[in-house]
Amino acid sequence: MPESARAYALVDGQWQTHWPSTDRGLQYGDGLFETIRFAPGGHIPLWKYHRQRLLQGLCALNFPIDSLKQIEQTLAQRPDAASDSPLQAGKLIVTRGCGPRGYAPPATPELLIQWQPFVPQDWACHRLPQGLTAGFSDIALAIQPALAGFKHLNRLEQVLARQRFESDWQEAVMLDTAGQVIEGCMSNLFLLEQGRLITPDLSGSGVNGVVRRWLLSQYNVTVTTIDRVRLLAADAVFFCNSLQGIISAAQINGQAFEHSSAQQQIAALQQDLENLYA
Amino acid sequence: MPESARAYALVDGQWQTHWPSTDRGLQYGDGLFETIRFAPGGHIPLWKYHRQRLLQGLCALNFPIDSLKQIEQTLAQRPDAASDSPLQAGKLIVTRGCGPRGYAPPATPELLIQWQPFVPQDWACHRLPQGLTAGFSDIALAIQPALAGFKHLNRLEQVLARQRFESDWQEAVMLDTAGQVIEGCMSNLFLLEQGRLITPDLSGSGVNGVVRRWLLSQYNVTVTTIDRVRLLAADAVFFCNSLQGIISAAQINGQAFEHSSAQQQIAALQQDLENLYA
Repeated sequence: MPESARAYALVDGQWQTHWPSTDRGLQYGDGLFETIRFAPGGHIPLWKYHRQRLLQGLCALNFPIDSLKQIEQTLAQRPDAASDSPLQAGKLIVTRGCGPRGYAPPATPELLIQWQPFVPQDWACHRLPQGLTAGFSDIALAIQPALAGFKHLNRLEQVLARQRFESDWQEAVMLDTAGQVIEGCMSNLFLLEQGRLITPDLSGSGVNGVVRRWLLSQYNVTVTTIDRVRLLAADAVFFCNSLQGIISAAQINGQAFEHSSAQQQIAALQQDLENLYA
Repeated sequence: MPESARAYALVDGQWQTHWPSTDRGLQYGDGLFETIRFAPGGHIPLWKYHRQRLLQGLCALNFPIDSLKQIEQTLAQRPDAASDSPLQAGKLIVTRGCGPRGYAPPATPELLIQWQPFVPQDWACHRLPQGLTAGFSDIALAIQPALAGFKHLNRLEQVLARQRFESDWQEAVMLDTAGQVIEGCMSNLFLLEQGRLITPDLSGSGVNGVVRRWLLSQYNVTVTTIDRVRLLAADAVFFCNSLQGIISAAQINGQAFEHSSAQQQIAALQQDLENLYA
């Protein structure tokens, strides 16, 4: 196992590097995760949005009401909190914990929490200043309103899509089974049309990302259904997530995006996001 | 953790009761499972169908080609294989194992295999001789042909549905998001119409169970789309899975099924299945 993949599980109050075999996260994907980037001072600029999504997921899965408090307390005690690395990130997993065999959750579950710290890459826009190359995934996202928006552990659609990336892709555009554009495999996406920001409606599929919601809170954004024709006709397209930040698409499915004022507008958004982490 | 929930993980050639934290089964649900019932002599009468479904899942998820051989070897060495309990069962989990963070699987994954032995209940038709009570779940199954039929670890739809059982239900009928009847929460289902066996098409959703496929191999069964009106108008409905066997519905959504020759036909199927385990 590579050193970078060390994960800590909080089991019976102790941080360990193994996990109970009968955990419902493993048995059924009965849990949530968040991928979190810290500012140099150690705070989490987008914590408000991580917290909001965790809360949505805890409610949707019917986890105990005090789960969020427990998660926040655990995160404060994470094994790497005392480290002085300049830029840190981590993946948080919260599951419904162990239980007897069967889909029915225990009446009073004891959550299990995992923390996987890592050093993130630089923002994608610095690594790929010309933007990224993407294509359309041939895995269509199922439409399931009961699981849409929050970040649960049932991620086989993304695993399948990621396996099918062509060699020059850094991201894939995922459509749903009705043919509407939803998101990237690992990110949300936005269009620019004559200076206006547009992003897909996620009520049926997709993950409602923290950068997406921060953008919705800061700018005037239209949330609507978008098909692939409209996507390719946009002045520009960008992808965003908590680790990569905001990254422009240089081309999608061979269609290049070269509208210079739209690219400048994306650069301004990138700068606004980076300022949160200054 | 209850004693019945002890699970054994094969890690680095040793059976252990913990699981690596960075396993992709936990991180993404990137794996498969089977719930297996043994005959008293220790063989698995429906192994052919478990094996077939494992193979379908291994191919769909693009696991290494020799995975099935590894699973069969591991199963032969399971910790309880030497036990002389009269009737045994177990849950088998196979995951893509550990890897670096991210959806992309490692190029040469090392599978992890878990075995959770337990003593099964008696066949459901002996415990509930009058049949079971079921209702319609308000969780609709998403339509996702890329994941339909095989038994993967992304089971949140079933967890949500199981939580919503009314107190007098022993099973729930799951429809898909298009309103077609697919299966029970924990089983497949069949209709009897004037002596004919009918079962839902599972090309978009659902688990293609081992008892279902055994029935398809033994009898003349029509596989088609079925809506709730047709289900409730049937002479009889039964549910089936590897642990519970074949169990008739006494009522679904308040509609009683009392067609005596259809019930006799179900009793004959139950006997045929039990004979495999004699």
